Amino acid sequence: MLVQGRHVRTIWRSESDASVIRTIDQRLLPFTFAYRDLVTSGDAVEAIREMIVRGAPLIGVTAAYGLYLAALEARSDPFFHDHLMETAARLRDARPTAVNLAWAIDRQLGIIDRSMTPGEACARLLAGAEEMANEDAERCRMIGEHGAGLIEAISRRKNGAPVNVLTHCNAGWLACVDYGTATAPIYLAHDRGMHLHVWVDETRPRNQGARLTAWELGNHGVPHTVVADNTGGHLMQHGEVDLVIVGCDRATATGDACNKIGTYLKALAARDNAIPFYVALPSSTIDWSIRDGIAQIPIEVRSEDEVRYIDGENERGENTRVATMPPSSPALNYGFDVTPARLITGLITERGICTADEEGMLGLFPERGAADA
Amino acid sequence: MLVQGRHVRTIWRSESDASVIRTIDQRLLPFTFAYRDLVTSGDAVEAIREMIVRGAPLIGVTAAYGLYLAALEARSDPFFHDHLMETAARLRDARPTAVNLAWAIDRQLGIIDRSMTPGEACARLLAGAEEMANEDAERCRMIGEHGAGLIEAISRRKNGAPVNVLTHCNAGWLACVDYGTATAPIYLAHDRGMHLHVWVDETRPRNQGARLTAWELGNHGVPHTVVADNTGGHLMQHGEVDLVIVGCDRATATGDACNKIGTYLKALAARDNAIPFYVALPSSTIDWSIRDGIAQIPIEVRSEDEVRYIDGENERGENTRVATMPPSSPALNYGFDVTPARLITGLITERGICTADEEGMLGLFPERGAADA
Repeated sequence: MLVQGRHVRTIWRSESDASVIRTIDQRLLPFTFAYRDLVTSGDAVEAIREMIVRGAPLIGVTAAYGLYLAALEARSDPFFHDHLMETAARLRDARPTAVNLAWAIDRQLGIIDRSMTPGEACARLLAGAEEMANEDAERCRMIGEHGAGLIEAISRRKNGAPVNVLTHCNAGWLACVDYGTATAPIYLAHDRGMHLHVWVDETRPRNQGARLTAWELGNHGVPHTVVADNTGGHLMQHGEVDLVIVGCDRATATGDACNKIGTYLKALAARDNAIPFYVALPSSTIDWSIRDGIAQIPIEVRSEDEVRYIDGENERGENTRVATMPPSSPALNYGFDVTPARLITGLITERGICTADEEGMLGLFPERGAADA
Repeated sequence: MLVQGRHVRTIWRSESDASVIRTIDQRLLPFTFAYRDLVTSGDAVEAIREMIVRGAPLIGVTAAYGLYLAALEARSDPFFHDHLMETAARLRDARPTAVNLAWAIDRQLGIIDRSMTPGEACARLLAGAEEMANEDAERCRMIGEHGAGLIEAISRRKNGAPVNVLTHCNAGWLACVDYGTATAPIYLAHDRGMHLHVWVDETRPRNQGARLTAWELGNHGVPHTVVADNTGGHLMQHGEVDLVIVGCDRATATGDACNKIGTYLKALAARDNAIPFYVALPSSTIDWSIRDGIAQIPIEVRSEDEVRYIDGENERGENTRVATMPPSSPALNYGFDVTPARLITGLITERGICTADEEGMLGLFPERGAADA
């Protein structure tokens, strides 16, 4: 998407030096936009571990490029393939709970074998990483194609008056390679000239909405307003929201959606005010083996320091952490919650939109019905 | 309630010097507990204007004491009564939207007249302020008496296992003189030896839950945990909340309740999970003239800086403001929302508990039915 008027992705091979992979240091956003170049496989490990890159799809693609960098740096190493395997292990450990990371590494290792010369393996790993990046961008673009139709329909109904979309957290292009998931319909509709405005939930405790989604939308020129997470219900009560689109970390075969903590509250408010509530997700997010999200999806408990402190920029432009509660009080930090399928109007996938139930999902992904039978 | 093991109110006449009114500088909480002495009427104006004291009941009582201080400082002034009237005007302007402030000033001015000597007026104003403070404390204690019964009943059902209460914002003793409104049932139940635990919503954007409610509960020895505002729905889905009690800034004659932004979202989650949701309020909060809270209660839009920045204590113990979103993105800051009566299990008032509807409310306040007829 656009940053300072120029189209960028979250990761790409440098135009000037094919041996350099360029990323954005997302830790510095929204206050500083700076590239972070990955030159060695160690740089890739560090980028993942230190959250220079974040978001499941982007982490996977970074690991894929990391294996290419490992091949590049070990071209004349007699233990070339051992180095690749060691790098794979280090990449895997960089964010141990990221399922997508392991998947991306396995996919890259699957397209090479020990009979290949370093040059051959290197070329394969580069092609594999680029393919993965392009696939992710295309999958998000397709989610955008399908979802933009929802915005178009509302825009027509409102005779072109701005369509107000509410989103929670960052399911944006910064978490992917391009477009994002929940944001893809917004970007495509905006690029086609539709008038829209996005309510951006701040998304405590890590503020990904305020920090990342607002930055993304602002740079792409999409009108938006940041609100505290508490605000969405009031906005919906007063006709200020036409549509809710959120992302998803894991969905069940029955359409329950696990997403950033607080999503469930917005789904309840949408239902109470008869506002359509959509979940945008690539089908890789669907866990076809589970049927009850509330009972079966384990919810990560993260460090209570994320509740206890807030990171921001002080008046001198320095990144600063401030405490916001009594040091002796305990805090608890659940990272996600589960929105039951009954509150979800539909799922926006790369294959189209379906109802959040087994019938709807198998209609779009019939091969999953066959696999289970 | 207890602070560092000693019982204090939010405002009282100094034991050592009858001409000094002592308050707590609430701007410094939760990091520093310091008294703020009001010696002149100007100190009282400043305390209200600079939010050294806050909360509708406390603001009113502070203004009442402010008139006593004005009388004290002008005892030998030939324009004694003019000075009182000027002070009244300055107090009134210190927080122009605080209805309770004007009410308290009018009540104090109503008990004196120009025929009184300064000494007489001074004694009356002191007695009036003390009476107002005691009345407020007693009203809150009665809310606590009635509400504690709800906690007791759940405690019995749970065979003495801790009762989990969720609250939003600060409807605590810091906003009143003692006990608080939503917190009064909690303090009374705790003091009677019941096991309970309070989930404290952080309450963005001003963090009154994290800063004030957590501090109050911690000092009084009530087990509690601070959570991001996004968390309550997940807790309720998983049986971690037995009861919700919130405060109220304004209620309609039909039981709709306007309270801190985000309250409505918690009411929706409580309903979705069949958890009782109570609003604690002194009857002075009921606006008997309105019947539709969503349509008729104007919602204050506060400075967007409260969303844009967060105040806290940095690692050197200094109060610091940090930005958490892109400087070029707009923000919007609604201060309150309205929870419709249909989502409220009951209202806890100083006269008892009633259903959130006209019939229930007139049952407790029959004189209001007569007034309207």
